[in-house]
Amino acid sequence: MTDLSSTDAIRAACRALPEGDADAARAAAERQNTLTKPPGSLGRLEEIAVFLAQWQGRAQPALETVDILVFAGSHGVVARGVSAFPGEVTQQMVANFAAGGAAINQLAKAAGARLSVVPLEVERPTGDFTCEPAMSNAEFADAVQKGYEAVPADADLVCLGEMGIGNTTAAAAVVAALFGGGGARWVGRGSGVDDAGMRRKADAVDAALACHGSTLADPLSALRLVGGRELAAMFGAALGARHKHIPLLIDGFVCTAAVAPLARLETGGLAHALAGHVSAEAAHGKVLAELGLRPLLDLGMRLGEGSGGAVAISILRAALACHNGMATFAEAGVSGG
Amino acid sequence: MTDLSSTDAIRAACRALPEGDADAARAAAERQNTLTKPPGSLGRLEEIAVFLAQWQGRAQPALETVDILVFAGSHGVVARGVSAFPGEVTQQMVANFAAGGAAINQLAKAAGARLSVVPLEVERPTGDFTCEPAMSNAEFADAVQKGYEAVPADADLVCLGEMGIGNTTAAAAVVAALFGGGGARWVGRGSGVDDAGMRRKADAVDAALACHGSTLADPLSALRLVGGRELAAMFGAALGARHKHIPLLIDGFVCTAAVAPLARLETGGLAHALAGHVSAEAAHGKVLAELGLRPLLDLGMRLGEGSGGAVAISILRAALACHNGMATFAEAGVSGG
Repeated sequence: MTDLSSTDAIRAACRALPEGDADAARAAAERQNTLTKPPGSLGRLEEIAVFLAQWQGRAQPALETVDILVFAGSHGVVARGVSAFPGEVTQQMVANFAAGGAAINQLAKAAGARLSVVPLEVERPTGDFTCEPAMSNAEFADAVQKGYEAVPADADLVCLGEMGIGNTTAAAAVVAALFGGGGARWVGRGSGVDDAGMRRKADAVDAALACHGSTLADPLSALRLVGGRELAAMFGAALGARHKHIPLLIDGFVCTAAVAPLARLETGGLAHALAGHVSAEAAHGKVLAELGLRPLLDLGMRLGEGSGGAVAISILRAALACHNGMATFAEAGVSGG
Repeated sequence: MTDLSSTDAIRAACRALPEGDADAARAAAERQNTLTKPPGSLGRLEEIAVFLAQWQGRAQPALETVDILVFAGSHGVVARGVSAFPGEVTQQMVANFAAGGAAINQLAKAAGARLSVVPLEVERPTGDFTCEPAMSNAEFADAVQKGYEAVPADADLVCLGEMGIGNTTAAAAVVAALFGGGGARWVGRGSGVDDAGMRRKADAVDAALACHGSTLADPLSALRLVGGRELAAMFGAALGARHKHIPLLIDGFVCTAAVAPLARLETGGLAHALAGHVSAEAAHGKVLAELGLRPLLDLGMRLGEGSGGAVAISILRAALACHNGMATFAEAGVSGG
């Protein structure tokens, strides 16, 4: 068992990231060049096949078991009027997930993925990070550990998602701490706030930056002080996927903000991750650019729940259908170029 | 039976395009606003659901029967050294389609679509359009009709694709005729020609523009004189889908060039079409922009065969999974914004 019982233990686990399988990646790339198509003509589908080979450790990767993990948490900062929806919607949506009525339920089914929803004390909001820590060290470590353990060892791919009224403000505070700039650079309309709501969001982020000051310079501290339980859990899941040799598909702005500390702590810390999409939440594109991640989809989505990642699963399936199923030039008797 | 026995008959059929169902579209848009998500948060997935409602004529559209139609043709212009592959590859790839070894076979299966391959006299190349008509009037009408008839009346969606060594040069000649500019504006590397090959492609297009002159001003004449049989068939299929009230998913550069004359002949002639992706072939983005079509995917693909459209089918399925499967705020007991 990996010790994640404290922030220091989590930091140590982040220093022990396994690498991908370069031999499997090379074999996959060689296979691509034998298939009946002009070399490179499947574009990113070819890159995805090689990526999955690298992180699954086999030249012909598979997507038999795909897990979507949706983490839910409640946020003290909601009291600052930062959301278009009341805080109780987080619990109501967790019930909607359980009943099968949310977007992610339909998208998971369409993508042939298992959906697991992990509520993190949704009845107990985090501290209001504008004037106090969102989480204590113990609360933070507990959420990270829950995320780590939620990653099934047998998964071929893990996709992260979240639900938490107020969490685009938490995400904005985290990335402001990680990448600099004030609240106005990182806040957006989230679930649909008006201009006054946008100003309240920016003010909340600026207040948090002032309150916590230089303690935010450490990525893990930033995630603990101004993040949220579902963000900490997504971070833990990203770490868990890496330790368990499972490629990771990330979703929108909140999800990307949550896993970003792994890349800030360790070079290549998110090398096992693909960005499923770029959200309509304007800050998401900026965070992806900071992390050097190119999104697979750009469909104007901004729902969260893992919805963008779930849609991208089918792109990965298409990539492997070609990689594993196509005939070679020799098999098909087709003349090369 | 729609008369398509001559260029004039085809022109008349293009003047008789049915409109979409505005009532179904309105009902679908209203349904979207009741579902458990912030309004608009599914972005283009919401627009797709409304689009499919409009063109299927029902507020809750379905994708039970999806047909991918791949048309294959051979090109006299191949003698000009415009392709990285020899002309016989067209027939070899038709055999590969039949044997199930090509990319589109795998992508069709992954997308849950039926695949039909329609070879159009692949043993008999079109005329070399740099100095003679690609097709006679009778040959053109025959190819258009074959495309029209290939559209099954029971399809919920039709996706077009093509195979034809040399056909990016034909497509470049067609769009040069439709949108202006010389060969250099519209040619690209296709299946992978080098710089000298690119120059031969541009020269071939320029020679075609000089040879056929003002007769290219008419979109149907352009398609006949400098297109190819599989392009004419895709045009016929786009016309057939419209007449049969079936939404259309188009693929890459060659496919888009082939259906573009419908938009040039009639305002809104491609209103029933979605662009599945934008190809790495640089001219494709320019043609989509000329037509006002926004691609769903941008994955650096440039294979043809309908491959980009096939990958996009899963986006449409995701859109309908949400549209038809999600709970409403009232059903789920979730508080509105």
